Amino acid sequence: MAIIDLNCDMGESFGAYKMGRDEEILDYVTSANIACGFHAGDPATMRKTVRLALDKNVAIGAHPGFQDLVGFGRREMKVTPMEAYDLVVYQIGALSAFVKSEGGKLQHVKPHGALFNMAAKDAPLSEAIAEAVYKVDPELILFGLAGGELVKAGEKIGIRSASEVFSDRTYQADGTLTSRREENALIKNHETAVNQVIRMVKEGQVLSLQGVDVSIKADTVCIHGDGANALEFAKYILTALQRANIKVAKIGDFL
Amino acid sequence: MAIIDLNCDMGESFGAYKMGRDEEILDYVTSANIACGFHAGDPATMRKTVRLALDKNVAIGAHPGFQDLVGFGRREMKVTPMEAYDLVVYQIGALSAFVKSEGGKLQHVKPHGALFNMAAKDAPLSEAIAEAVYKVDPELILFGLAGGELVKAGEKIGIRSASEVFSDRTYQADGTLTSRREENALIKNHETAVNQVIRMVKEGQVLSLQGVDVSIKADTVCIHGDGANALEFAKYILTALQRANIKVAKIGDFL
Amino acid sequence: MAIIDLNCDMGESFGAYKMGRDEEILDYVTSANIACGFHAGDPATMRKTVRLALDKNVAIGAHPGFQDLVGFGRREMKVTPMEAYDLVVYQIGALSAFVKSEGGKLQHVKPHGALFNMAAKDAPLSEAIAEAVYKVDPELILFGLAGGELVKAGEKIGIRSASEVFSDRTYQADGTLTSRREENALIKNHETAVNQVIRMVKEGQVLSLQGVDVSIKADTVCIHGDGANALEFAKYILTALQRANIKVAKIGDFL
Amino acid sequence: MAIIDLNCDMGESFGAYKMGRDEEILDYVTSANIACGFHAGDPATMRKTVRLALDKNVAIGAHPGFQDLVGFGRREMKVTPMEAYDLVVYQIGALSAFVKSEGGKLQHVKPHGALFNMAAKDAPLSEAIAEAVYKVDPELILFGLAGGELVKAGEKIGIRSASEVFSDRTYQADGTLTSRREENALIKNHETAVNQVIRMVKEGQVLSLQGVDVSIKADTVCIHGDGANALEFAKYILTALQRANIKVAKIGDFL
Repeated sequence: MAIIDLNCDMGESFGAYKMGRDEEILDYVTSANIACGFHAGDPATMRKTVRLALDKNVAIGAHPGFQDLVGFGRREMKVTPMEAYDLVVYQIGALSAFVKSEGGKLQHVKPHGALFNMAAKDAPLSEAIAEAVYKVDPELILFGLAGGELVKAGEKIGIRSASEVFSDRTYQADGTLTSRREENALIKNHETAVNQVIRMVKEGQVLSLQGVDVSIKADTVCIHGDGANALEFAKYILTALQRANIKVAKIGDFL
Repeated sequence: MAIIDLNCDMGESFGAYKMGRDEEILDYVTSANIACGFHAGDPATMRKTVRLALDKNVAIGAHPGFQDLVGFGRREMKVTPMEAYDLVVYQIGALSAFVKSEGGKLQHVKPHGALFNMAAKDAPLSEAIAEAVYKVDPELILFGLAGGELVKAGEKIGIRSASEVFSDRTYQADGTLTSRREENALIKNHETAVNQVIRMVKEGQVLSLQGVDVSIKADTVCIHGDGANALEFAKYILTALQRANIKVAKIGDFL
Repeated sequence: MAIIDLNCDMGESFGAYKMGRDEEILDYVTSANIACGFHAGDPATMRKTVRLALDKNVAIGAHPGFQDLVGFGRREMKVTPMEAYDLVVYQIGALSAFVKSEGGKLQHVKPHGALFNMAAKDAPLSEAIAEAVYKVDPELILFGLAGGELVKAGEKIGIRSASEVFSDRTYQADGTLTSRREENALIKNHETAVNQVIRMVKEGQVLSLQGVDVSIKADTVCIHGDGANALEFAKYILTALQRANIKVAKIGDFL
Repeated sequence: MAIIDLNCDMGESFGAYKMGRDEEILDYVTSANIACGFHAGDPATMRKTVRLALDKNVAIGAHPGFQDLVGFGRREMKVTPMEAYDLVVYQIGALSAFVKSEGGKLQHVKPHGALFNMAAKDAPLSEAIAEAVYKVDPELILFGLAGGELVKAGEKIGIRSASEVFSDRTYQADGTLTSRREENALIKNHETAVNQVIRMVKEGQVLSLQGVDVSIKADTVCIHGDGANALEFAKYILTALQRANIKVAKIGDFL
């Protein structure tokens, strides 16, 4: 039977600032990527979000990002691989302590924002991130862009790597995502978005903007947690996937 | 045989800023309290300091402080017990990940600066800190001021508590430290300082400024890592304690 | 004719985090206290908020706070008067540059949160803050709690001080605010709240919880910018004050 | 008569962390670039450094950098021109307030580290920086790499631009600095270094590594304030320039 994980970034509130509708969206996803205090999140938010995920039986991942709160970790920073290694170890550790103190177990690590995007194209950076994950706990699963360097780096060092795909982004003939600067980068129609995922899961193919099919591995789909209709889309895709006989489960249960 | 642990704060460098003579002082202490990135320290410094301590067979502790880098964690902040709990969990976790990734094991937790001082006098704050330590790992040892609330809170929740004494501070008849604002707060003569520790360890007594003996428990002595003659004093006290037939060992080996 | 200024904290968004309904509330106040990047606000938010205030002809004030973003500047920090002086100079300067670059002129300074509350009761702290304002620009107006130390410190050094009163807080017989920990601290009824202000402005009196009248000087009223019905109350108080023949104007125009 | 300004970065201490020998080096330079709290510096350090510079009759400049304290502003960040504009306005303002409160006047602005290097090659980024300077105070002088985009952007918007040259770096035939990754990037011999500057000032030429002369404008030379022999070199270059009949003066006095 076809199977997929649904993941969502959360725990992105900070102090008096609230972001996302974590509690509600947790009803529709199987893996939660929790911010670790560098690009978003703070210790109290981390504890509460971990608690919520455990209560709703959603698997927990660390979501380390650049130390750029005002830029929300979305701005590229020219870090060395060693610097990336260090910031990933630090953030996994910080989140792990909350997971442990709340009685849970960390499932995965997914770099955030600019770090995620940079890693997809940068082998030495990806190898440093994969080594950080491996050294902290070789049982952890590393999330990376399907077809990107991070997935390869995880496999190389010997940890499980999950290939992440997007429902709401179009693909190029070489398997990369269409740049957000292009007009056709986003898929706004919910049905089209979900059908793209269904085909990825069942056939391992995605139709590129150039009209040719591209092979793609789909282990987990990224659901957005903010935005006006995030919750609505989360419900929609969960139902649609199940209706298409695709099992939705935590990545740690099937990878 | 009388026994004592010698601990020192370290890993307090930050980015381009260097502080302390960690590598040298590690030759004379048995437990290292490593800053965790809030009041001092950064991920790279944490990794390097953990590596150094492991290489020199010095036990490692997390040294969590207030998130006040410019004030070096020395300024009191009116946090709630829950906020203290959260920042201690976070920082223990961050350091633990470096300890684990370098192949070591965390021995203890010692709050830093204003947090340490506030906890000594504040039972609810101490209980929150002790609970944080307990929840992350009940095998960890909690360092607190001898006779203070933190030691009591650790015992209450059921973790090992180490009573910390000072060689270079004078004591009051009620067992508290003489305030630094008083003239006689500091002991500058090395021999007097060490003799105070020897008597604490062997007799469980310290002579207060008021001329009466006070009972005190001495599990670990705090050695300062910065200042002009920090290294010199570290050598001096280690030698003097051994000459007085006091064994100097990691707290985890005898508490 | 009786006259009063209505002030509101704003510019409290930070990066991806949005807070407050600044654009709308600016239609109902005469002075805007803009966060300066320490407890809230960031450079882009400061620029945009200054622009908005200028476009709506609202006077601009710097709103300096403690460097405690996660605590929103609401947690007391034991700073020295010199440290307070420095952080106030820094933040006034940062905001001033945006005011100048957008073609405006800074009217006032109002410390934020814990710094405001601490200053009200601490003369040396207030004197340091007043000196910071004076040294940067002696034409600036300093906002402080009516009857508190900050107002006195401003008068002492020779700058104009504005006494701030609250519409939604009850007063004690000694002229201080009822602590928020007390049951009767808040006035939730809009009409009662506004009537308290009208009496303060017209008669210079407020009825304390103990049933006795207390003399109070009311130069400016603090309107809250967040909360469910902030906007509604802002409209209500503006209309009610005008109906009571009280002129609502920028403090700089009449103090 | 040939004339040149000698500038040096300073005020880079932060809280308990000390950096540089500002007080001594101020005896040998004419312009001080003072860090503004983002990549280095804190409010107290800014105040003290401004005071020192005024006491030693050294002209003061703001030295704005990326908000990356742990990376000391040396890591490239992919900011938009608008973000650069905002962070430059903010930091100029913060420093200006200390200059004003200490009774001085700001002379110039020199971006720091990665921001300086990125601006040299990026016209839109440079134009945003130049606009920030212009909007805050069109009398300010903007320092940029000789021949780079920042100098051009300053001239374009109508502020005075100072071309900065290096004594201890080699140049390429196209007028750019040899990359630090190349072996011959640095000039370690003091006499060679100073002779390069003398020729730049007197003849407007520098001999490139390729053996051909390149035209270069030299308004100010950057002296390093840290490093083992920073002070020694500062003395050496000042004496050597004066001996070569080159006047050393504040840029604001002759540009």
